[in-house]
Amino acid sequence: MLTCKSCGQRYDLSENIIRCGCGGILENDIQSGEIREGTLIWERFRDFFDLDIDNDFSLGEGNTPLVKSNKISERYEIDLYFKNETVNPTWSFKDRGTFTGLNRAINLGYSKLGTVSTGNMGVSVASYGSRAQLDTTVLVSSTISENKVKQIGVYGPRIIKVKGDYGQLYFESLNLGREKDIYFLNSDDPFRVEGYKTIGFEIFEEMIPDHILMPTSSGGLFRGIVKGFRELIESELLSEMPNLISIQSEGCSPIYRAYKEGKENIDHWDDPDSVAHSIENPYPPSGDEVLRLVKEYDGTILTVDNDEILSAQKELAEDGIFAQPASCVGIAALERLTEKGIIDKKDKVVSIITGAGIKDVSSVNVSDNTISCDMEDLKDNL
Amino acid sequence: MLTCKSCGQRYDLSENIIRCGCGGILENDIQSGEIREGTLIWERFRDFFDLDIDNDFSLGEGNTPLVKSNKISERYEIDLYFKNETVNPTWSFKDRGTFTGLNRAINLGYSKLGTVSTGNMGVSVASYGSRAQLDTTVLVSSTISENKVKQIGVYGPRIIKVKGDYGQLYFESLNLGREKDIYFLNSDDPFRVEGYKTIGFEIFEEMIPDHILMPTSSGGLFRGIVKGFRELIESELLSEMPNLISIQSEGCSPIYRAYKEGKENIDHWDDPDSVAHSIENPYPPSGDEVLRLVKEYDGTILTVDNDEILSAQKELAEDGIFAQPASCVGIAALERLTEKGIIDKKDKVVSIITGAGIKDVSSVNVSDNTISCDMEDLKDNL
Repeated sequence: MLTCKSCGQRYDLSENIIRCGCGGILENDIQSGEIREGTLIWERFRDFFDLDIDNDFSLGEGNTPLVKSNKISERYEIDLYFKNETVNPTWSFKDRGTFTGLNRAINLGYSKLGTVSTGNMGVSVASYGSRAQLDTTVLVSSTISENKVKQIGVYGPRIIKVKGDYGQLYFESLNLGREKDIYFLNSDDPFRVEGYKTIGFEIFEEMIPDHILMPTSSGGLFRGIVKGFRELIESELLSEMPNLISIQSEGCSPIYRAYKEGKENIDHWDDPDSVAHSIENPYPPSGDEVLRLVKEYDGTILTVDNDEILSAQKELAEDGIFAQPASCVGIAALERLTEKGIIDKKDKVVSIITGAGIKDVSSVNVSDNTISCDMEDLKDNL
Repeated sequence: MLTCKSCGQRYDLSENIIRCGCGGILENDIQSGEIREGTLIWERFRDFFDLDIDNDFSLGEGNTPLVKSNKISERYEIDLYFKNETVNPTWSFKDRGTFTGLNRAINLGYSKLGTVSTGNMGVSVASYGSRAQLDTTVLVSSTISENKVKQIGVYGPRIIKVKGDYGQLYFESLNLGREKDIYFLNSDDPFRVEGYKTIGFEIFEEMIPDHILMPTSSGGLFRGIVKGFRELIESELLSEMPNLISIQSEGCSPIYRAYKEGKENIDHWDDPDSVAHSIENPYPPSGDEVLRLVKEYDGTILTVDNDEILSAQKELAEDGIFAQPASCVGIAALERLTEKGIIDKKDKVVSIITGAGIKDVSSVNVSDNTISCDMEDLKDNL
C-alpha cells in the first residue's frame, strides 16, 4: 500500500497514482525480510520490495563499492568511506530509482515512459526506458547545453526542449501524462525511494556506520536511505539508525532554512545559485518529509558554500574519485562537523557520492598543474 | 618470474624491469589456485597474483556487471552479454591494470609514477597515483583537448604537454623513467595484463561463454583475458578456452593486416584514421603476441569500419549502455560473425565494453530525436 505523507490517505498498489489527491507525496509501506543469495541487489533483498521486479531490465545498477578514504580520513582523523554511486550504469545513483520506477510503470501496464530533467535523471530514464523498449520522452528546458542533450539523446528517447517556466513543467508533465498515458517518472515518484533504499542495504552489507552524509535536493535520496535502514531495523538485522546528516548547497537550501527557522514546511527558494547544479531543486517535493525525519531521528542539516564545494571536489579527486560538485557537499561539511563535535575522532562516516564528475568538467581548473614543453626539454621538466 | 615473449629470457620479480633487454614484452608466469571469499576481486582470486597487493589503494575496480542484451540478442538470435567496464572507478577497464601496475611500482620501491596517454589510461593513472600519494606525471601530446586535460588533471597529477612525435614519447618515457626514478606504467607493462585477467575471472564467476569479443589496440586487454582463462584451465576450474575474437578498427588495424597476410610480426600502421580513438595504437606492443594467441587457440581477427562502429554505438545505447566508439567494435562485428557462421544461433557471446561514452560525446548525433516547442504546444508534441 501507499500512504500520503501529508494527509495519511491510503492507496492500494493497483491504483494508478503518483501523488496523493491532496498534493502530498506517497510512500510505500515499510517492508521486512531476510537477506538472500544473489548477484543483483534486487535478488539479495527481494523480500523488501512489494513490486514485481523484472531483472531483464536491469543494467546491474547498485552493487557500488564502499571505498575507504586515505587522505581525507587522515586529515580529520575519522574513519571515512565513500559510497561511490558514480559507477552506476549511467554514472549516478538515479539508476537505482529509475529501475524500480520503471518496474512500477510496467506493473501498471504502461508502454510509455517520461521524465522532466536536464541532468542525471534524464540520462537515467532515457537509458532504462530504451532498454525496456518503452516509448520514452524526456522534457528538458530550452536552455539545456548541447553536451547534456547528447548524454540524454544517445539512448534514443524523444527529447523535447520546452520553452517556458521549468518549475511549472513538472506539474504539467503529471497532468499530460495522465491524459496521454505516459508514466512520468519524476523525482517525487514513490518507487524511486524504493530504489534508493538499496544504498542503505548495501552499506549495511559491508559495515555499520556512525554517521551518513547525504547531499539533499528533492529529498528522495535521503528518504530512501533512511527507509532502507528502517527496514533493516524492522527486520531485526540492525539495532539503531546511524546519525543522519543532510547537506544542502548554500545557494539553494530551502530545507535548511526551514530547519533553522524551526518550521515544519519548506518554502520555495527563489533564484537558486550554486555550482552544485544537481542539488538545486528550489522546491523539493520531499522537503517536509526530510525535516520530519531529521527531527524524529535527531539528525542534522547544514549548508556549504561554492568555495567549500569546489575544494572538496579537488580533495575527493585526490582520494581517487572524480565526482560532480553536488556529490562533494558531504566532504565539504566535514570541517564544520568535526569542529562542532557532531562527528568525533575515529567515528565511522559514510559520504554518499551521488554522480560522476566527467558528466560536466567545466568546474575543473587545471592551470596549476599543467605545463608545456618540447621533447628535448622533457628531462628537465620531470 | 617474468618471461620475454620474444627471446624467452627469464627475469626474477625482484628485478626492476618493464621490457626485456631485446625490446620484447614481458609476461608473468601462469598462476593457479582456488577461488576464495571476498568482496574485492583481488580477495577472491588472491591465489592468482605473484604480487604484494595493498587493498588500501583499491577504488573497488572490477566487479563490473555482466549485462544481458535485450535488443541486440534478439536481432542476431544469440545469447549476448555485455561485460560493462564503463562502471569502473575512472570509467574504463584500464583501472584494473592500473591497480596491479601501481602495486608493482610500490613493490619495487618507487615513489614516482608516470604514464604516456591522452585517454583512458592517463585518467586512470592520475587517479590511482594520487590516491596512493605517489608523485604522478602524465605526459600528453600538445594537441590534447581541454576536456581531456581536465579529466586527467582533476586528480592533481603534473600534466606535461609535450611537443614532438607522440610515438617516440613512449620510448623516451621509459628511458627518462629509469634516469629519474619514475615508474612509467604504460600500456605494455606486464602487470597491466595481470589486472586485465580479472575480466576473464569475473566472466567465469557468472557463466562460461562460447565466444569472447575483444576490442584490440595495444593487445594488453586481449592478452589479459586469455591469460585469465588459461589460469582457470590450469587450475582445473574451466575445461576449455572460449572462442577468441579480436576486433580492430579498419582505420588502424596493424594486427589484422599481419593476420590476413599470414605474417608472424606486425608492421607500423601509418596514418591511423578511425572514430574509435581509444584503439588507434599504430604499433601495438603486444601485437605479435595477439597474433600468436589467435593462431594457438584457432581464434579470429576482423575489422569494422567507422559507420559500423557508430551504428553499433547507437544500438548498444538502445540496450542501455553508452560506450566509447572503441567499445562498440564487438557489436559492430556481429553481423559478419553470424553471417559467416563463426557465431551460431543461440551461442553464448560476451562482448567487452571497455570505456564510457560520456568521456567524449562528440560522436553522438541527436538531431533525429530532438524537437523544441512552447509549453502550450507540449500536449500536441507528446
